[in-house]
Amino acid sequence: MSGEVKSGEFKTKKVAVLGATGYTGIELVRLLLEHPGAEITYLSSESHAGKSLAEVHPQFTGWDGLVCSPLDSKSVPEDVDLVFAALPHGSSVEVVPALLERGFRVVDLSADFRLKDDSLYPAWYDRAHPRADLLPSAVYGLCELRRQEIRSARLVANPGCYPTSAILGLAPLLNKGAVDTNHIVIDAKSGVSGAGRSPKQAFHFPECSESFKAYRVASHQHTPEIEQELTFMASGGASPEKSSQQGDGKPGGAEQGVTVLFTPHLIPMNRGILSTMYISLNQEWEESELLEVYRNFYADDFFVQFFEPPRLPETRWVRGTNFCHLSLRHDRRTGKAVVVSAIDNLVKGAAGQAVQNMNIMHGWPEYTGLTQTALVP
Amino acid sequence: MSGEVKSGEFKTKKVAVLGATGYTGIELVRLLLEHPGAEITYLSSESHAGKSLAEVHPQFTGWDGLVCSPLDSKSVPEDVDLVFAALPHGSSVEVVPALLERGFRVVDLSADFRLKDDSLYPAWYDRAHPRADLLPSAVYGLCELRRQEIRSARLVANPGCYPTSAILGLAPLLNKGAVDTNHIVIDAKSGVSGAGRSPKQAFHFPECSESFKAYRVASHQHTPEIEQELTFMASGGASPEKSSQQGDGKPGGAEQGVTVLFTPHLIPMNRGILSTMYISLNQEWEESELLEVYRNFYADDFFVQFFEPPRLPETRWVRGTNFCHLSLRHDRRTGKAVVVSAIDNLVKGAAGQAVQNMNIMHGWPEYTGLTQTALVP
Amino acid sequence: MSGEVKSGEFKTKKVAVLGATGYTGIELVRLLLEHPGAEITYLSSESHAGKSLAEVHPQFTGWDGLVCSPLDSKSVPEDVDLVFAALPHGSSVEVVPALLERGFRVVDLSADFRLKDDSLYPAWYDRAHPRADLLPSAVYGLCELRRQEIRSARLVANPGCYPTSAILGLAPLLNKGAVDTNHIVIDAKSGVSGAGRSPKQAFHFPECSESFKAYRVASHQHTPEIEQELTFMASGGASPEKSSQQGDGKPGGAEQGVTVLFTPHLIPMNRGILSTMYISLNQEWEESELLEVYRNFYADDFFVQFFEPPRLPETRWVRGTNFCHLSLRHDRRTGKAVVVSAIDNLVKGAAGQAVQNMNIMHGWPEYTGLTQTALVP
Amino acid sequence: MSGEVKSGEFKTKKVAVLGATGYTGIELVRLLLEHPGAEITYLSSESHAGKSLAEVHPQFTGWDGLVCSPLDSKSVPEDVDLVFAALPHGSSVEVVPALLERGFRVVDLSADFRLKDDSLYPAWYDRAHPRADLLPSAVYGLCELRRQEIRSARLVANPGCYPTSAILGLAPLLNKGAVDTNHIVIDAKSGVSGAGRSPKQAFHFPECSESFKAYRVASHQHTPEIEQELTFMASGGASPEKSSQQGDGKPGGAEQGVTVLFTPHLIPMNRGILSTMYISLNQEWEESELLEVYRNFYADDFFVQFFEPPRLPETRWVRGTNFCHLSLRHDRRTGKAVVVSAIDNLVKGAAGQAVQNMNIMHGWPEYTGLTQTALVP
Repeated sequence: MSGEVKSGEFKTKKVAVLGATGYTGIELVRLLLEHPGAEITYLSSESHAGKSLAEVHPQFTGWDGLVCSPLDSKSVPEDVDLVFAALPHGSSVEVVPALLERGFRVVDLSADFRLKDDSLYPAWYDRAHPRADLLPSAVYGLCELRRQEIRSARLVANPGCYPTSAILGLAPLLNKGAVDTNHIVIDAKSGVSGAGRSPKQAFHFPECSESFKAYRVASHQHTPEIEQELTFMASGGASPEKSSQQGDGKPGGAEQGVTVLFTPHLIPMNRGILSTMYISLNQEWEESELLEVYRNFYADDFFVQFFEPPRLPETRWVRGTNFCHLSLRHDRRTGKAVVVSAIDNLVKGAAGQAVQNMNIMHGWPEYTGLTQTALVP
Repeated sequence: MSGEVKSGEFKTKKVAVLGATGYTGIELVRLLLEHPGAEITYLSSESHAGKSLAEVHPQFTGWDGLVCSPLDSKSVPEDVDLVFAALPHGSSVEVVPALLERGFRVVDLSADFRLKDDSLYPAWYDRAHPRADLLPSAVYGLCELRRQEIRSARLVANPGCYPTSAILGLAPLLNKGAVDTNHIVIDAKSGVSGAGRSPKQAFHFPECSESFKAYRVASHQHTPEIEQELTFMASGGASPEKSSQQGDGKPGGAEQGVTVLFTPHLIPMNRGILSTMYISLNQEWEESELLEVYRNFYADDFFVQFFEPPRLPETRWVRGTNFCHLSLRHDRRTGKAVVVSAIDNLVKGAAGQAVQNMNIMHGWPEYTGLTQTALVP
Repeated sequence: MSGEVKSGEFKTKKVAVLGATGYTGIELVRLLLEHPGAEITYLSSESHAGKSLAEVHPQFTGWDGLVCSPLDSKSVPEDVDLVFAALPHGSSVEVVPALLERGFRVVDLSADFRLKDDSLYPAWYDRAHPRADLLPSAVYGLCELRRQEIRSARLVANPGCYPTSAILGLAPLLNKGAVDTNHIVIDAKSGVSGAGRSPKQAFHFPECSESFKAYRVASHQHTPEIEQELTFMASGGASPEKSSQQGDGKPGGAEQGVTVLFTPHLIPMNRGILSTMYISLNQEWEESELLEVYRNFYADDFFVQFFEPPRLPETRWVRGTNFCHLSLRHDRRTGKAVVVSAIDNLVKGAAGQAVQNMNIMHGWPEYTGLTQTALVP
Repeated sequence: MSGEVKSGEFKTKKVAVLGATGYTGIELVRLLLEHPGAEITYLSSESHAGKSLAEVHPQFTGWDGLVCSPLDSKSVPEDVDLVFAALPHGSSVEVVPALLERGFRVVDLSADFRLKDDSLYPAWYDRAHPRADLLPSAVYGLCELRRQEIRSARLVANPGCYPTSAILGLAPLLNKGAVDTNHIVIDAKSGVSGAGRSPKQAFHFPECSESFKAYRVASHQHTPEIEQELTFMASGGASPEKSSQQGDGKPGGAEQGVTVLFTPHLIPMNRGILSTMYISLNQEWEESELLEVYRNFYADDFFVQFFEPPRLPETRWVRGTNFCHLSLRHDRRTGKAVVVSAIDNLVKGAAGQAVQNMNIMHGWPEYTGLTQTALVP
């Protein structure tokens, strides 16, 4: 891929990163520094305002021009083309409306604009949504499934890390209408960086190293986001190009919403999510037919690579990259399909997908600045 | 617990360990050295015959009397009371019959005598069973569920690590007859020591550190063992004391066998298995009722600790111990129960359970020599 | 070793553990529960007063009788024979004097009573010592080197983890008078549990996993403790039995104190310290002579195992145990000796040595309750 | 830095990678795919000839054009500008001479051409050098110190990983003539990827995870390479631009060679080397003067970043990058300087430096294709 995207082809665009010192923030900076079309002109950090990014994160030593401003929507320079908001959930909604009013396009990496149904916020996020009026126009930024809307969006709600891995894994079967939507189980496992950068007892090294656990069993706040998008897929959603891939033209046909049982786990490692998904099929299928569904669905998507049997994903193969690796097995004994998906939670699950969204919004090739292969080992 | 089991109460019994230099073998030695009733008088190792155990495994420096003999059923001394066979699958069946003929009681830690239906061996282990005649009298040594049979057994087939975690987690609900046996999903995760001590590409440090993967999706050889025992539980099995705990006296009522979808995963850590199990309930249940089923079922079992909500198991809390920690959640949204179980794969999943079986066979308190608490952190 | 120390031989003694919920505290509890002569009758915890230990540390589930009191020297029951103080540095000195006045013997695991020269406290611990009057009678509890004093001590200052590994490694050569005391370099590496249980940015899992660093280069507060004891050794110190091992009866002859350059490092693992020590020899030596010095020096010490070449220590072989593994190489090219020592920082480096001190104080065999072999892997 | 090196400025050059499936090989491929001036046109692999690289290393899925040829110097295409040989020690010398005869420029990543004195090969590598005639013209490719020679070299011997970290850390002081060359101690620690990709008992996950050890104490084969280059530095070496930085123009003045005591250790992580170096100073120095020496020495070197106190290097900050992070402390108590250096063993310690060498050989900016910042966390 090297060399395909030449910087000479780009008119460089200026970008801002809010919340630049968190894990998602520094991942955005890492990716944007390699992006031939983006120029970082503004960084904010509440906890480290006034410092250079290299003072807080010494891996940026040598890039000492990156200085953090205090978080303030008014100080984002006028000539910025796009703002990445990598703020905590609940903080984003305090800042993003003002940015939109100032005319900026925003890719928001928090959960604040992901759910269309504002009544879900009190149930899953413990507070009413203060700006429910903005939810209808926000676009859920799962690139492979909503490209067309993203292209012209003013506000992209960048998906959560778990939802990205789960939705990409389940979308083809749901779009095909092949699933008994009462028995979807998503057993997901994440590295510790998903918990953010603030030290807490549960993520103190000796408390999670050499250990493994489930948490928020069947009650994680990413559940409604997954259900919203799978319901969309089951009702025939996805971009037109995807819809045409359905072959038989039938919508997935879920009149009621899709419900999933989602349980996350903590892996003693830094990066990566692996989701294992169990799906009851609603008719007899040959494994070869199921494989064909996946192969076709993602045939044109560079960042979703479907693995043919016997290969199965491992998180290391996507470490540091924007790829999602997928595989499927049909278990004849139980009539279920098992889909395994792997992503890097900080890249395809956060900063990388945000950059991919920027590429789509700017009409650039989707892979621009995102062609690095995984850091293995 | 300290001091309850006093060595003065025991007439010490002599034991042999075959396959003493593998991970299961050294774990047996570790536990037996602390056991007040057992005296190791014979060790075998094919790869390290003639060496002291401390030469191969320097953690035994200071216990230099432990010398490995070549593997030979004839050289096990007559006065040995019990033989632990910690040999590879397929090797055990070559040795154990001769030991039984010589009159030894045997706890076999391989898979060679676990399945009652010998027709399953070709399907799951790629070879016909050469001594199917021994299968009927072998007792599946999951202590909490088959105590009575174990007590008088000549040959105990010590359960696999995954099956131990899965069966203990599912037994109460199946015994209660509360499960739609068509939708049992077992998503299990294991540390790398489960793969044994021989170096292989997949377990080379840089290939599995900082990574996570599924393997043998829906096709792992531990599947039939789990199904065999769950079928037993669903048909009203378990020791009489357990049966009486059923309350309503009704057998679980599974006329056909239980089928499970079992998928293992590899965690980048040394020890521990966490199994997350998804169960469709066949009627409406309150969570409190389900909790009561578990609480009661294991009320008298020291090594199975049921955690009340909101606590969930973590593998570190059983590291180095013979405990199984369990929890249950009822997901009203999907009508499923989620059971999480944690064990140390080398202890309750192998050597510890073998010692617990020895204790039962000798009429000793089950916890004898097994009261060490976890090595945390 | 199993069975050598029978509980029947002991009159059980009651012990108290102050600071029971920190890593050192729970390690003491873990060891004391297995100790045939000790009965825990009092636990304190400032942060978790009123809770059972199992609520805070679920690995103690099944031992629910262990309840934490608020920290209060007055509430330690009269019939306690020995108090373990596992409190933070600076807190211990607030409590221990009152315990001594009440007549308790105390093993203090903090740094508060380790240094004889109270003028070192301001320099290395940033505060004057409030009870310098107690320092002369406190005994530095490095068991192998000060047994005789420990036996009758009222207050034992349990050594630091780094000092234990360093002093045990260097003592034989210094005692022999074989060292140019101007060029001692101690390059030590520790697992993260050494940093304690409070979450901090530097020990947040993603900040130290898959990374390695030096810290407090040549300025760590364990330096004066090492120098104090090495000066003692160099001047002919150690228990009489050690002194007699010197052969030539000559003191080490360091008229001035020994100075060391000590630099600690952080290893991305939970437990273990490995110290690599570089020593300029003050005369020509054959490697075989140096090996003989070590072999003899520790000939009667169960917990210090000297490895003959080519074996070198690895921290896993002492994990969870009270052992120190040592090796030595002579580098003819540079005229230096390299000594490598490995301990478990929480056992021989803290709680295990504290129990060993208790054993000595009570006249019990030193290994009582400490015979568990390492948890490998 | 992004955008500074534009692909439009380059005439792309064709490169070959021999030994493409080892860890160094895939790291070269990873870096070269991002390099705007290099085009991979030939890959070889003995063990995986005929396969696409993605079959062996699925992180390259999506780059399926990369196919491995069998290793054969004759099949390297004529139009290749530069060959990277990432072959095992001893294999390289079998292939490289033929490549040189065919007129290719070669960057060899093995140890086969690093030592000028061929008599050292039998002592440290257990065999005589079969082509000692090539040693004089091979250039030791430590970029920062031998730029001028590298520029026109036909054969660059890419430095070992440990030597890179050690030499960069010690060069300024030796060049300054500030060191007592009899007391240099290098205590180095490496992640496991340094051991290569072949599975071995010592690098089996459960054997090295959660453990730490020293190995080849004072006898590692990288020792002579370090001594050779430090002797060069001590005698006033380094590129002219460095020499001029000496200020006083005095050569380091080591008439005899420099001898070092070098001991490597194994860290339970994938990537990174941290070397802690202890240096006896031959006169009185202020710390500020020493810092100034380092600051100046590397003032113009993008890839060597000298950290001002109190900052100390951590390997994570260079993970995946070509940087070397350095710091220095003066210990007034012992009159020694402590230098700490961190690199990624696979990048600056191998593949990255090889690419940097290519850049120098082609007259490209040194940082071309090497500007990615570290993957943190």
